[in-house]
Order: sequence, then C-alpha cells, then structure tokens
Amino acid sequence: MTDMIGLVAAMLTTISFLPQTLMVLRTGRTDGISLCMYALFTTGVAGWLVYGLMVGSLPVIIANAVTLVLATTILGLKVRAVLVAQRQLPAQA
Amino acid sequence: MTDMIGLVAAMLTTISFLPQTLMVLRTGRTDGISLCMYALFTTGVAGWLVYGLMVGSLPVIIANAVTLVLATTILGLKVRAVLVAQRQLPAQA
Repeated sequence: MTDMIGLVAAMLTTISFLPQTLMVLRTGRTDGISLCMYALFTTGVAGWLVYGLMVGSLPVIIANAVTLVLATTILGLKVRAVLVAQRQLPAQA
Repeated sequence: MTDMIGLVAAMLTTISFLPQTLMVLRTGRTDGISLCMYALFTTGVAGWLVYGLMVGSLPVIIANAVTLVLATTILGLKVRAVLVAQRQLPAQA
C-alpha cells in the first residue's frame, strides 16, 4: 500500500511536466514561466538523477530521466526566448 | 557524498517553485501555466507527503509539505483564472 502510494506519486509528479512541455512547444510562449524556477528545478532533477545512479535505484533514475528531458525542453525554450528578447530581435518562426 | 547530492537535489527541486509562485502572485498572470500540469503535480506531491508520513521520513515530509504549499498556491490562482474566464467576467483586481 505504502509502495503503491509512492509509485503513483512518482508517476504523477513525473508526467505532470508533459502537458506544460506540450503547451510551450505548441504555443511557443514562455513569458508566464519562471526562468529561475526551471533553472533551479532542472539542476535539482539532474542532481536526483545522479543520486539515483549512485544508489542504483531504478525508479529514481527513470522518473528523473523523464522529468529531466521535459524540464530541459521547457528551460531551453525559455532561455532562447530570454536571449531573443535581450537582443531585441524578433523571435524566429 | 551521495546523501549530500540527494539533499542538495531535494532542496533545489523544492525551492524552485518559490520564484514561480512569487511571479504568479506578483503579476497575477497564469495564462502561460498549464492547469493540467499543476493538477497532476499537486496531486503527486500530496501523494509524496502521504508516503513520507507513512514511512516516517522527515526529509520527504518537509520537502513535499513546502512544495505542496507553493504548488497549491499556483494551482489555486490558475483555477480561479480559468473559472473567471469561463464566466466571462473581468478578473478582479
């Protein structure tokens, strides 16, 4: 029962980043998203992945590898949008 | 060393939601944020908190309690914005 709750919780927090990633990819808009949040979060998830690899925990590795791909996608698009805005160039279509 | 990496990772993923929460509270704008993401994520974090309480893990309890407060704040503001938009009423100042 306890393991099942942990498993469901891990699945929910991992897949939750999929709709946000799809939203950003679809709309191309990142202005409502905090750069600081995704910089900290992506670093943290990378840390969790390293931790999972060090302790050899497959659930920690899988959950954080998936989350890392999704969070990095959002972070990458946000960083690109910030750089484009700083250079005062129009965003590429 | 392994525990230190896990601890830093937990701190980063937990505090990462603070800048996003402050951004939403400051701007009042939630249109770039995925309702689906925060609905899944908040449920997942609540699940992690229950899991932490069941296994008696203080780090899991603390990290997820803090994240739950931050994620619930973002989710609440997003739900309010969606409800206001559905009723086609202007957002309250």
